[in-house]
Amino acid sequence: MATQTTKRSSKKDHNGTAEDRTAEICRTAAQIICEKGFDATSMNDIAVAVNLTKAGLYYYTTGKQDLLYRIINYAMSLVEKNVIERCSDIQNPKERLDQIIRNHVVLVAEGGGPIAILSDEVNCLPKAQRREVIRRKRGYLEFVRQTLRDLESEGLLQDLDPDIASLNLFATVLGVARWYRQDGAMSSQEVADEIAKFLCDGLLRE
Amino acid sequence: MATQTTKRSSKKDHNGTAEDRTAEICRTAAQIICEKGFDATSMNDIAVAVNLTKAGLYYYTTGKQDLLYRIINYAMSLVEKNVIERCSDIQNPKERLDQIIRNHVVLVAEGGGPIAILSDEVNCLPKAQRREVIRRKRGYLEFVRQTLRDLESEGLLQDLDPDIASLNLFATVLGVARWYRQDGAMSSQEVADEIAKFLCDGLLRE
Repeated sequence: MATQTTKRSSKKDHNGTAEDRTAEICRTAAQIICEKGFDATSMNDIAVAVNLTKAGLYYYTTGKQDLLYRIINYAMSLVEKNVIERCSDIQNPKERLDQIIRNHVVLVAEGGGPIAILSDEVNCLPKAQRREVIRRKRGYLEFVRQTLRDLESEGLLQDLDPDIASLNLFATVLGVARWYRQDGAMSSQEVADEIAKFLCDGLLRE
Repeated sequence: MATQTTKRSSKKDHNGTAEDRTAEICRTAAQIICEKGFDATSMNDIAVAVNLTKAGLYYYTTGKQDLLYRIINYAMSLVEKNVIERCSDIQNPKERLDQIIRNHVVLVAEGGGPIAILSDEVNCLPKAQRREVIRRKRGYLEFVRQTLRDLESEGLLQDLDPDIASLNLFATVLGVARWYRQDGAMSSQEVADEIAKFLCDGLLRE
């Protein structure tokens, strides 16, 4: 996504920069794909939903699989910006862990659900793209793992394998995307409280 | 799946009953779909992998979407048989929780991975089938939720919402499907130990 977005970033449409427009297309497409399934979603469905002609949509993407690749990369950019960048300066590992969980849950709950769900669909991608996405995911997991290792070295981690614990954290937070409803009874902050409590109780010593 | 399997259960092939054969097709198809993606997998790919002609495969299923429906139902049958049936007689809710987690993790780790991953793909199904699958999933979640409510009434549950806690448990256990490798360093029992420890620490009071 990065290369093409850069190439086109000088172009603007009525909704803002091409980058904004690509993000909007990713969000809308992710929602439709999650509702209808990747197979049953047509480029036309997506074009209609983002108020573009089909030809207009092909200005932003070369096809459905390329779109999935963009969606997954967009998901990772959001995680990098909203979780890693915001938390990497927090020195206290207990506080950092808490903030990683809260920021990530809020991101998923506040509209990032379909994008988070699709970020698991790496197996639909060709091998080279799959490798690139896995590399970015590892960056996130490594950040969480390092936080758990910091906790371990301070004697604050339960007797758990930090590698598996970071995968458990990731699964629980992404799991929110599969059940949270923005029009339901809980605010995203309340869900973040609940998930942070559950995960911190499971990960930290008293 | 149930209706067709019943209809054909008197027929046997060289590998056992038609029911066994359908289960084998579900397992193999799930593996291929997880590797290649639903869209990129053809009925021919699946037929070759299960050593059938394409016509032979159509004896067991009407097509790819029907096959996905069968895979998801097969996944739910495995959970009902290996988790719910085995644990429902355990009176002590703490012991029941521990056994639910262990049995489910072992099921996912010992070859149920691709099936577990696809059991999340309910959005690819037509509405009536989707409803049926969601109903079965609710059966599992209700079983876990009831266990958590039993723990709550005995003052053993952390200060958590049992509904969300049961979803967190489900996400963590299914998450194992996305990272566990049968040829890796950990046995399925070791993973079950690790996940049970993490979840019980997160859910139970000291």
